[in-house]
Amino acid sequence: MNEESLKKLFKEVREGGCSVSEAIRQLKHWPAESIDIACIDHHRSLRTGLPEVVYGEDKSAAQIIAIMKKMMAKSCLALATRVSHEKALTVCREVGGLTYHETARMLAGNEDKVEEAGYRGTILVLSAGTSDMPVAEEAYLTARYLGNPVEKLYDVGVAGIHRLLGYKQMLDEATVLVVVAGMEGALPSVVGGLVDKPVIAVPTSVGYGSAFGGITALLGMLNSCAPGVAVVNIDNGFGAGCMAATINRKNE
Amino acid sequence: MNEESLKKLFKEVREGGCSVSEAIRQLKHWPAESIDIACIDHHRSLRTGLPEVVYGEDKSAAQIIAIMKKMMAKSCLALATRVSHEKALTVCREVGGLTYHETARMLAGNEDKVEEAGYRGTILVLSAGTSDMPVAEEAYLTARYLGNPVEKLYDVGVAGIHRLLGYKQMLDEATVLVVVAGMEGALPSVVGGLVDKPVIAVPTSVGYGSAFGGITALLGMLNSCAPGVAVVNIDNGFGAGCMAATINRKNE
Amino acid sequence: MNEESLKKLFKEVREGGCSVSEAIRQLKHWPAESIDIACIDHHRSLRTGLPEVVYGEDKSAAQIIAIMKKMMAKSCLALATRVSHEKALTVCREVGGLTYHETARMLAGNEDKVEEAGYRGTILVLSAGTSDMPVAEEAYLTARYLGNPVEKLYDVGVAGIHRLLGYKQMLDEATVLVVVAGMEGALPSVVGGLVDKPVIAVPTSVGYGSAFGGITALLGMLNSCAPGVAVVNIDNGFGAGCMAATINRKNE
Amino acid sequence: MNEESLKKLFKEVREGGCSVSEAIRQLKHWPAESIDIACIDHHRSLRTGLPEVVYGEDKSAAQIIAIMKKMMAKSCLALATRVSHEKALTVCREVGGLTYHETARMLAGNEDKVEEAGYRGTILVLSAGTSDMPVAEEAYLTARYLGNPVEKLYDVGVAGIHRLLGYKQMLDEATVLVVVAGMEGALPSVVGGLVDKPVIAVPTSVGYGSAFGGITALLGMLNSCAPGVAVVNIDNGFGAGCMAATINRKNE
Amino acid sequence: MNEESLKKLFKEVREGGCSVSEAIRQLKHWPAESIDIACIDHHRSLRTGLPEVVYGEDKSAAQIIAIMKKMMAKSCLALATRVSHEKALTVCREVGGLTYHETARMLAGNEDKVEEAGYRGTILVLSAGTSDMPVAEEAYLTARYLGNPVEKLYDVGVAGIHRLLGYKQMLDEATVLVVVAGMEGALPSVVGGLVDKPVIAVPTSVGYGSAFGGITALLGMLNSCAPGVAVVNIDNGFGAGCMAATINRKNE
Amino acid sequence: MNEESLKKLFKEVREGGCSVSEAIRQLKHWPAESIDIACIDHHRSLRTGLPEVVYGEDKSAAQIIAIMKKMMAKSCLALATRVSHEKALTVCREVGGLTYHETARMLAGNEDKVEEAGYRGTILVLSAGTSDMPVAEEAYLTARYLGNPVEKLYDVGVAGIHRLLGYKQMLDEATVLVVVAGMEGALPSVVGGLVDKPVIAVPTSVGYGSAFGGITALLGMLNSCAPGVAVVNIDNGFGAGCMAATINRKNE
Amino acid sequence: MNEESLKKLFKEVREGGCSVSEAIRQLKHWPAESIDIACIDHHRSLRTGLPEVVYGEDKSAAQIIAIMKKMMAKSCLALATRVSHEKALTVCREVGGLTYHETARMLAGNEDKVEEAGYRGTILVLSAGTSDMPVAEEAYLTARYLGNPVEKLYDVGVAGIHRLLGYKQMLDEATVLVVVAGMEGALPSVVGGLVDKPVIAVPTSVGYGSAFGGITALLGMLNSCAPGVAVVNIDNGFGAGCMAATINRKNE
Amino acid sequence: MNEESLKKLFKEVREGGCSVSEAIRQLKHWPAESIDIACIDHHRSLRTGLPEVVYGEDKSAAQIIAIMKKMMAKSCLALATRVSHEKALTVCREVGGLTYHETARMLAGNEDKVEEAGYRGTILVLSAGTSDMPVAEEAYLTARYLGNPVEKLYDVGVAGIHRLLGYKQMLDEATVLVVVAGMEGALPSVVGGLVDKPVIAVPTSVGYGSAFGGITALLGMLNSCAPGVAVVNIDNGFGAGCMAATINRKNE
Repeated sequence: MNEESLKKLFKEVREGGCSVSEAIRQLKHWPAESIDIACIDHHRSLRTGLPEVVYGEDKSAAQIIAIMKKMMAKSCLALATRVSHEKALTVCREVGGLTYHETARMLAGNEDKVEEAGYRGTILVLSAGTSDMPVAEEAYLTARYLGNPVEKLYDVGVAGIHRLLGYKQMLDEATVLVVVAGMEGALPSVVGGLVDKPVIAVPTSVGYGSAFGGITALLGMLNSCAPGVAVVNIDNGFGAGCMAATINRKNE
Repeated sequence: MNEESLKKLFKEVREGGCSVSEAIRQLKHWPAESIDIACIDHHRSLRTGLPEVVYGEDKSAAQIIAIMKKMMAKSCLALATRVSHEKALTVCREVGGLTYHETARMLAGNEDKVEEAGYRGTILVLSAGTSDMPVAEEAYLTARYLGNPVEKLYDVGVAGIHRLLGYKQMLDEATVLVVVAGMEGALPSVVGGLVDKPVIAVPTSVGYGSAFGGITALLGMLNSCAPGVAVVNIDNGFGAGCMAATINRKNE
Repeated sequence: MNEESLKKLFKEVREGGCSVSEAIRQLKHWPAESIDIACIDHHRSLRTGLPEVVYGEDKSAAQIIAIMKKMMAKSCLALATRVSHEKALTVCREVGGLTYHETARMLAGNEDKVEEAGYRGTILVLSAGTSDMPVAEEAYLTARYLGNPVEKLYDVGVAGIHRLLGYKQMLDEATVLVVVAGMEGALPSVVGGLVDKPVIAVPTSVGYGSAFGGITALLGMLNSCAPGVAVVNIDNGFGAGCMAATINRKNE
Repeated sequence: MNEESLKKLFKEVREGGCSVSEAIRQLKHWPAESIDIACIDHHRSLRTGLPEVVYGEDKSAAQIIAIMKKMMAKSCLALATRVSHEKALTVCREVGGLTYHETARMLAGNEDKVEEAGYRGTILVLSAGTSDMPVAEEAYLTARYLGNPVEKLYDVGVAGIHRLLGYKQMLDEATVLVVVAGMEGALPSVVGGLVDKPVIAVPTSVGYGSAFGGITALLGMLNSCAPGVAVVNIDNGFGAGCMAATINRKNE
Repeated sequence: MNEESLKKLFKEVREGGCSVSEAIRQLKHWPAESIDIACIDHHRSLRTGLPEVVYGEDKSAAQIIAIMKKMMAKSCLALATRVSHEKALTVCREVGGLTYHETARMLAGNEDKVEEAGYRGTILVLSAGTSDMPVAEEAYLTARYLGNPVEKLYDVGVAGIHRLLGYKQMLDEATVLVVVAGMEGALPSVVGGLVDKPVIAVPTSVGYGSAFGGITALLGMLNSCAPGVAVVNIDNGFGAGCMAATINRKNE
Repeated sequence: MNEESLKKLFKEVREGGCSVSEAIRQLKHWPAESIDIACIDHHRSLRTGLPEVVYGEDKSAAQIIAIMKKMMAKSCLALATRVSHEKALTVCREVGGLTYHETARMLAGNEDKVEEAGYRGTILVLSAGTSDMPVAEEAYLTARYLGNPVEKLYDVGVAGIHRLLGYKQMLDEATVLVVVAGMEGALPSVVGGLVDKPVIAVPTSVGYGSAFGGITALLGMLNSCAPGVAVVNIDNGFGAGCMAATINRKNE
Repeated sequence: MNEESLKKLFKEVREGGCSVSEAIRQLKHWPAESIDIACIDHHRSLRTGLPEVVYGEDKSAAQIIAIMKKMMAKSCLALATRVSHEKALTVCREVGGLTYHETARMLAGNEDKVEEAGYRGTILVLSAGTSDMPVAEEAYLTARYLGNPVEKLYDVGVAGIHRLLGYKQMLDEATVLVVVAGMEGALPSVVGGLVDKPVIAVPTSVGYGSAFGGITALLGMLNSCAPGVAVVNIDNGFGAGCMAATINRKNE
Repeated sequence: MNEESLKKLFKEVREGGCSVSEAIRQLKHWPAESIDIACIDHHRSLRTGLPEVVYGEDKSAAQIIAIMKKMMAKSCLALATRVSHEKALTVCREVGGLTYHETARMLAGNEDKVEEAGYRGTILVLSAGTSDMPVAEEAYLTARYLGNPVEKLYDVGVAGIHRLLGYKQMLDEATVLVVVAGMEGALPSVVGGLVDKPVIAVPTSVGYGSAFGGITALLGMLNSCAPGVAVVNIDNGFGAGCMAATINRKNE
């Protein structure tokens, strides 16, 4: 029950077309109206520049095709994450107008529908090693498709700290930093100590043995000795991109 | 070596008071000048409203007294976190002008030195249960001492979801939300689904048995089904307050 | 040795057809008669509406075929869980009259033999996301095949809490609720706070990274801040369905 | 906003004392009325026989005294769990009319206010060893204070299986069984194989070394080979008692 | 250097055929003589009836073929464990006279070379479920090939405790019991409570979700409330068979 | 119902003093007779030399006093494990004739009641370091009080392997070996490679950091590369002593 | 900016070809010159005998081919680790002059470019079992390609301790020892107790069940009772080889 | 039996003062002479500069007094680690001539007996934070008492990376580096990337929440992206000092 239908109900009550007890009965399950609210939420999402996103990992090519077709038809931006090369080939054969970002494993359609959000500045995505690139790219593209200017700085891990220090100015100029690292996950601590901007740390499953599929990097980041660092799930480039975009959004 | 001393060196070289090889020798260990840089960093910290903070857990009352006295003398805001009731009593007897926040276990001095930072809006701190209050209060006070307007909304856990929904407007009006919860740590997911602002999730060690001292809450928050949620260490109210302040800082 | 054979033995003793010492010898291994008792148990199981169920995960198609044929011949309900699509195809080619529930990965035969048990009310199965559907469907079908009326309500996870609140009436009308969720597993807490009926929580292995194959959801559910919630093993839709049916069974 | 105030609003609208737009404004924050709803919930709780319960572990004697006094004054049943012997002494000195159950570590007041709920049958609480008694007693008393007939059968662990088998009839006559065990936590599996009633398994922190404070028992119970078993948190006798009472409640 | 060569050395010293310093030089690396001792060890192994055993898991069919050929030629018993069906086919094509035990995944050659060891009695191998059979069979065959009389009793898990009780006599007559179980691993506790013989518990990786590949069963067995139970590694049927044989060996 | 009462029942049936249906009624709850069986079990325990043992860790001095007095009165051996120095003092003041073994933390009374069991040989208890002595002594005394000849060999850890090798003969002469070690727990592997007797490995909680209270030693022992090694719980010297005694028991 | 360009800048300042402020501007981003420094680092690496090494696990054959070609062209030693047999075949077909070490899974080119570093002595690589050989060989080859004399001693695990003791002299003559072991990982403790040289312990993922993919061996090594032992990651033969080479390097 | 006594034995044999069989009898238990060998080892230890060290954690003041007195009497260096302030006071009252290092919690006597070993260069001990100092000091003093020149550089953690870079020269001049850090344990990676010397990483238990008592730092160090880093147990400053001394020892 939205504002319109509510107004109508009250008018009927006032005009005697609806009894008080009937009106109460109709309002009794207003929480059930939450489906409406969910819809409103949905619209608000689109309004704030957050596109619908398909999580492709668990879905078959057929399922992705069905959803992407529907989204393309709505002529809003259509995104799918964690789509393997093989699935992507199948999907692109069936659905026209899609771009496949191989490293990030993302599919995008209606890219011209991305509107520049009211943003505060530039998001900078850093990665420690080349193996962290798929996750870094997912964060990069997510933030970009959410309408933000995004820069990237890859392969600046702590074992060669001079590489990072060489880009001090770039660090200083960003509004939000997304720092992606696997293995010991030390990069966010170092970056967090160099800047006074929010740092979103993304552990990756890069490593072997006691890297434990990203647990070591995750724990390292949670225990960062630099304040101003917060962490998302292992390999969650998409979540980091969303968080960065949310932070970078200009309050109206 | 800062800009001034660098300028002086170059002048001496130009004027012949210093040979080229001598100048190179002096610059060779510029990285060794990082002590200077650390100082500059330190000043920058103060400039941006981030006060020096003493981590009181591992320190004796005597050590805290010594540091607080020095900080009070510098007449900038003096903060100490994780100071037990007993230690606080001892410290307050020795150092005048301190406020002890018992729930948050924080000591503060020179509180009049807090300058309102250039902030973007209001930070809102939520907690799931009354047992989470010490951590929530640490986040609350940290953000406030960093010069931000902060509101709080405690005991709105998910087992009585109506309590939270009653404050929808308050959620909508915040710029950043800090959500503190122990046990299953589900509150940030629910909050993250209601707002389009950055949510900083803080797991607490509240619970018993398989709560594992906060691990369960931590894992729950890292796997939040709501995007736009990032997590700090267990019981790290201070870190959450810093992160929130960093996000809420206005770019000049 | 069941009641009948026991009666016969006593009669023989009374009538002198069996000496006392021989009778004692025959009874000496009554515990060994537990095979009989197991049979009686087995009959009791059928009587209470609990069909024999084949756990298909570890079994080859050939093994499943052999067992299902035997069960079909006994003309009681025949069920097999965790049967992959591929195995199901093979089994169905060899055994007639089977239904394959693809999402739930269950095979059922002699479906007309399901008798409505004496039940107390309706079981409601909820799931947080679409990826949790295989487990939710296993619970749904298990409860249904055990002779219960079952309703379902899928994709009502906590990140869009209004979706759930819209179905408050449906929640109120159920006798038992099975709540299936992966990732942070927060849904049972929210549901448990809305109803005064027993809630059976089922964690799923849905998620990635620190979801740890369902451990995070499991821990979250065990630490639910709502009382009246109990938990089964990860992905154990079958167990949840059995537990729900056992609770929903009418006494006497 | 409850039914009464809603009726009043509608009447005012009908009678012109309140404009339609004003009525909409008042209803706009109905979710904010959830505080009312929480109260209603609270009353419903009392109505269904679930008393308010104080979790005493984290609270000081002073805090418990304050809350218990308030609850005693409301002349409804007053319960507090996890109250140590020492705290209980202090509380009982200050608050009259309390009973302290030492083994269960529970405090109860206004015990005459317990009303027999509409129950389906008898709840049976079993424990494996004498060390599990505190948790078993907490479950026993919780269920009893929630208005149920409860029986107990302690020290019937699996290492002497004959002890349990001797009480087969008692097992058969219960409507719900709460099975409490530490160490390897095997008892619920054995009990679950003997009865066709719901079994609520409660792992305890009894044991040492690789018992890991109850994790081993918890895992054992979650992996029970008997269907119809669901599990609560380690040492959570209170939760098990609530779950049992919820199951044993008669549908009206 | 064994007793003989040592005697010879001393004689040469006495008779002047070897200088003292030369004798010391020869004895200096006596630890280096450990290679000899290793050989003696090896012979002793054969003498005590413990055949050489190939761990097949990590080895290619080609490697197994090479080793088995060499062992067959030595005309002593040749055993290989953890040989997959596919590898076994290849090996059997190349090496004549081998028996492949499919369930146990063991290959055996020169089976007529097994000599009955001096044994104390019968070893009994029990398993909880049919899925535990591969591990149980590995234990069974290992003990049998080490020259022991072995009985088996499978599928007597605790969820149907009467099945086990029916075989009380069989339990009583064994000298050593090997008890194999997955999931919650409760069987050894029950068996350990029924007999006064050593019980070797073998956890299996049977189960799913929080069975954690056998960890739950392992922990359950280590925390058995019955004394006289000791545990081997997950799925280590071979180790259990060896341990049982070592215990069952008659002292001369 | 034992053999005597059974014979009486049958006689009554034959002689008409008891109807067949009454006889069946009386036998119906034979499993309930398991209390008798438990008693028989209890006597059998005493007969086989296994004394009643009090687990003192969780019990108060008062509780231990009560039990020990009762056991002393029955004039059979009275044992209590894990009794702290302080508790022991209190107990010994109240109960006469007790010996307190301080290192093993065991109390023993009626020591003259220990009967030499029919044993097969000597049990040897080894420990890696001096810190492992409490556990080693618990195993040593348990085995001795169960009527076995026991030898000990302490502080022969693997970091000084020559110490162990010097006692090769002692190792060879034992019938069963109990090997106690903390930290990396490597000693059982080395011992297991030197002897052809059953080795019972006991991990201890000795160590710090990643020793994890004995988990590292436990895991090391479970993964021993020497066959013929089985493991008990961390610090479970009592269990190891029982297992060793059970193995060392002579079959009659 | 290296020494040369720095000298040039100073000269220009002195000669007036560059203003002081311009010079300061050029030096302002000297940290940004770290790219240069990285290059210098790179050269220093080559100078000290540490070749560039490709981590092949995550890379495709195509990627490895591209990098190896570039490295071969620079005519310095070219190494790639963790290259599967299949990938190696593809790479060798495309890039001439490569050697593939199958057990160590390493590819090497321009092997004649290895220069004997200034080394202190011989590195000795030991392994416990034959299954540890891939890791041991990776350490062996890494150290050799870094210009060190290396010996190996494989299959000398602790279950047959005499095998190791037979090579005491070889142990004594090494300068650094790399000890590779899986399962319980006990070998480094024994070796560390026999020598007074640095021991680098390498846990391997060899084992099953509670070996947990090398965690057990890792923990065992970290808790070694022998001082002078340090540990690298599971299966990290390359890291151990580097560490050994770094230790064995002669200070000039 | 050492070389001297062996020579004597041979002479007696030659001269007839000892029969061959008697000589063999004496040598038969040469492995039993390992006690002698342990002594020789002991002497060798002293010769190489490694003093006897008492691990004080588990020992009472009385035990430490007894051992220290004996060691002082032997007039060699006497060391005890992990001695609390309180115990140290007691010990120093009883044993003269001891120095107590409070931060490192070490006791030392006969300090003038430390002989400068033949060392290769200077050992540098770094620590990340002030809380890591106890562990760093233990490493520092251990290495110094083993006769090495040692430097220290504390509080140079990665969150203020400039502090470390300022001491590049100091890093370059060390022969071995011991790097001590808690929390995320990132410092060894950064240091390992700056130097070409062996780095011994020491995780500390500094931190809270998901620092897990040093596990996070330990895992971070094991997964260092810099080669040439090896790790010791959590808080094991003593082990790190020994390892550093062993590496720094000059080969004769």
